[in-house]
Amino acid sequence: MEDLSPTPRSTVGRGSARARADRSELHAFLADALVAHLGVVVDGDPVVLPTAYALAVDGPDDGGTLYLHGSVAARWLREAPARTVCVTVTELDGLVAARSGFHHSMNYRSAVVQGTARVVTDPAERALALDAIVDHMVPGRSATLRPATRKELAATAVLAVPLRESSLKVRSGGAKDDPSDVARGGWAGHVPLRRSAGRPVADDDVRTGVPDDVLARAAALA
Amino acid sequence: MEDLSPTPRSTVGRGSARARADRSELHAFLADALVAHLGVVVDGDPVVLPTAYALAVDGPDDGGTLYLHGSVAARWLREAPARTVCVTVTELDGLVAARSGFHHSMNYRSAVVQGTARVVTDPAERALALDAIVDHMVPGRSATLRPATRKELAATAVLAVPLRESSLKVRSGGAKDDPSDVARGGWAGHVPLRRSAGRPVADDDVRTGVPDDVLARAAALA
Repeated sequence: MEDLSPTPRSTVGRGSARARADRSELHAFLADALVAHLGVVVDGDPVVLPTAYALAVDGPDDGGTLYLHGSVAARWLREAPARTVCVTVTELDGLVAARSGFHHSMNYRSAVVQGTARVVTDPAERALALDAIVDHMVPGRSATLRPATRKELAATAVLAVPLRESSLKVRSGGAKDDPSDVARGGWAGHVPLRRSAGRPVADDDVRTGVPDDVLARAAALA
Repeated sequence: MEDLSPTPRSTVGRGSARARADRSELHAFLADALVAHLGVVVDGDPVVLPTAYALAVDGPDDGGTLYLHGSVAARWLREAPARTVCVTVTELDGLVAARSGFHHSMNYRSAVVQGTARVVTDPAERALALDAIVDHMVPGRSATLRPATRKELAATAVLAVPLRESSLKVRSGGAKDDPSDVARGGWAGHVPLRRSAGRPVADDDVRTGVPDDVLARAAALA
């Protein structure tokens, strides 16, 4: 399955010139970004919460799977199962200063995934998903850690959201000013923004050096 | 009104040790962050979209007002009026690498605002809100621009969301490992993350230097 936006619901409406239809581009973006915003409906009202996630390109769903986790006591997780959720992942890439207020904008990449969340119950898939969420933060780290305890697993809910209904929008570059504003002169352009990492900070109780996985993660984001 | 979380719906549930109750801290965070995720319910399902916003501390609502804007043709804006929306603003401040997968986490600040969105129709309030959204991106910039045209105003919807029902969660610092994991040794800590700006990039058609407002914005985020 190569095309995004296969259903009317996930078809990008406004700004469709910014929509991308390449699933590998969606996967690359989701591998690069760090935070998702999960939307669920609770008592008829929308609730949007930030959360960590992991991408499983070869997950159980055609087109890939997003894994999210949370406390079994969290209301949004109790409400989410077997309901449609919306998972939106956005990275801000710049501020666009135009010659009119109307054409001010932001450069960004944003994926919107709609689908029915499945509560993962299979122990092997749960373990894979939880490791993937740790490795999404710090690649390779899960292999260096002790296995999860029974108590930790019992306290953790894992959700799988299929990537089948997804869209990716990308805006980049400068302002799209009206010709009459360009003719009047004046400055327009953009301020590039990116995420940057500082040096790893050890906890007070640490007696060993920073491990390679954490160093590599910080260097990749530096 | 000084306290946040005045209603059960907006009371932080999980991780309430991270909840902040100081409204000035909420305002400072919303002034600092750049992107909001707006959640609305469309045909019973949640939809979450990234959007620019502005904070009006002295806006019409007790406790402050968030302004959002969008195309009048955008479906989420048509659906939002007179409905409850959820506006969540998150800034990621770090990756937390613990000695167990369970205690891996992220450092962040996140505000969750729930309320009934009001479509702003008063011309003066609309103009103030649109200027505030431009100035949130580049402080002081709206005063340097031509006024919006009638056509631009007709194409733009402005929403006001009261900050009355809000919560702010902040996580910072290192890992919160179990004592048994600390005793076994090994590294734990965090990788600080922040947004950083590059030098302003002028559009190809620009013949003038970078204005002070854009330079100041880039320097503040550098």
